[in-house]
Amino acid sequence: MTDQRDMSETKGRLLLIPNTLDFGCVGEDGQALPDLRDVLPMGAIHAASKLKHWVAENAKTTRAFINRVSEVTPLSTPLQEQDIQVLPRAQKGAPARPEVESDKQMAALLAPALAGHDLGLISEAGLPGVADPGASVVLAAHRAGITVLPLSGPSSLVLALAASGLQGQSFAFVGYLPVDVTQRGQRIRALDQVSRKLQQTQLVIETPYRNAHVWQALLEHLQPTTLLSVSCGLTLAQGWSRTDNVAGWKKHGLTLPDNIPAVFSWLAP
Amino acid sequence: MTDQRDMSETKGRLLLIPNTLDFGCVGEDGQALPDLRDVLPMGAIHAASKLKHWVAENAKTTRAFINRVSEVTPLSTPLQEQDIQVLPRAQKGAPARPEVESDKQMAALLAPALAGHDLGLISEAGLPGVADPGASVVLAAHRAGITVLPLSGPSSLVLALAASGLQGQSFAFVGYLPVDVTQRGQRIRALDQVSRKLQQTQLVIETPYRNAHVWQALLEHLQPTTLLSVSCGLTLAQGWSRTDNVAGWKKHGLTLPDNIPAVFSWLAP
Repeated sequence: MTDQRDMSETKGRLLLIPNTLDFGCVGEDGQALPDLRDVLPMGAIHAASKLKHWVAENAKTTRAFINRVSEVTPLSTPLQEQDIQVLPRAQKGAPARPEVESDKQMAALLAPALAGHDLGLISEAGLPGVADPGASVVLAAHRAGITVLPLSGPSSLVLALAASGLQGQSFAFVGYLPVDVTQRGQRIRALDQVSRKLQQTQLVIETPYRNAHVWQALLEHLQPTTLLSVSCGLTLAQGWSRTDNVAGWKKHGLTLPDNIPAVFSWLAP
Repeated sequence: MTDQRDMSETKGRLLLIPNTLDFGCVGEDGQALPDLRDVLPMGAIHAASKLKHWVAENAKTTRAFINRVSEVTPLSTPLQEQDIQVLPRAQKGAPARPEVESDKQMAALLAPALAGHDLGLISEAGLPGVADPGASVVLAAHRAGITVLPLSGPSSLVLALAASGLQGQSFAFVGYLPVDVTQRGQRIRALDQVSRKLQQTQLVIETPYRNAHVWQALLEHLQPTTLLSVSCGLTLAQGWSRTDNVAGWKKHGLTLPDNIPAVFSWLAP
């Protein structure tokens, strides 16, 4: 790696801008989205309002975000003049691959920062690079001697973990479960054993329309004594978090919405 | 577990109140603490301002937090009339043990919520129950049919992960490393292997005065090609995040402050 830290003062910074957690929930159930100020700190909102250059998971949702920012504080650059570059689409559920693989592509994404402008990185929900694309851009920024500044904001994973009451001194986010039914069952049973052996809370997410399938699979394949938690619609007015053991869940039943994000976590005793 | 959900409307809620990440940094280096509004959303600040009853990791730091809240928005109950119960002290670095083990003790902590009052749970930094005490209170609340509401706020772990540029689709927080030098080296080498095998980012924290020891141990025991990241003073004006491979770090050197929290993370290729 080339160390170019001495030159960093001539460069812009890469600001990691937290997004809200209500992606895809617009207008659902007739519920209003939360006020931006209720879920994001003013530090992040102000920083976003001053940016002109962005690297984003999705241009449309980024424009919607910038529009919400503009309702709270004036933008330094009008929305229509903002420069939004989109990350190559990463495969959800794919393991451990950087979403940008060509140096040329990366240099183009980082060009505004290299030219001295602050550059915002933003995903569709929560923090960029956490259960979301963006990590490869951050790593490339470090390599290029660009200062990386993460701004305080929410992550659904740790909010769900806090709300679960499960072990928070040791936990693992293991991404998405396999879609194939047999593989999914095997994976859940293996992760139940990992949780038991390491006393480590396991967290997974899923695209909302598969919530009910994942839930049924968890009830089927986790041990009856395993504590299982689900947080649905975190930060939304209709959001909720509940924890019980698998045996308890089987007794009472639960219907999960198919249009609101959920985080699932468990701890085997 | 007893299911008392039908009675939940007569009970108060357990609100998980995020704290700032500047614990222990008061006045250090002559730097001012961040403005509360820059690091916490107004939703959390407003919710905190309306509470009278708290379960806290530490009463003194909770009063300091409530005082910062009062500088932003008026309190519903004056600080001196607030009811702050303190969690039994959990052992930092101790594995997987609930900090409250007696039902009687737990019933006393949850009494305000059972009597119909909202109850705030707060730790000294970040989210309660995430690398901090509080999880056993949350679990007991679920068991007692008390609604658990996590409020949007920062966690140093995921901010550090976002800032690292390392794998954010699969990561584990493994707590504190052993203090014993031999055990610490073994543990780091084992976690380097876990990272390589699972392509999973590993995160650890340490009390600030041991930052330099942990850093040296990581440089000694991780493989030269392992990517190693450190985030120091997250959300503070003097905070920074950097990532390089171990070989690179050995070449350039790095001095870590002994009075500011750091998060360490690594990913073995």
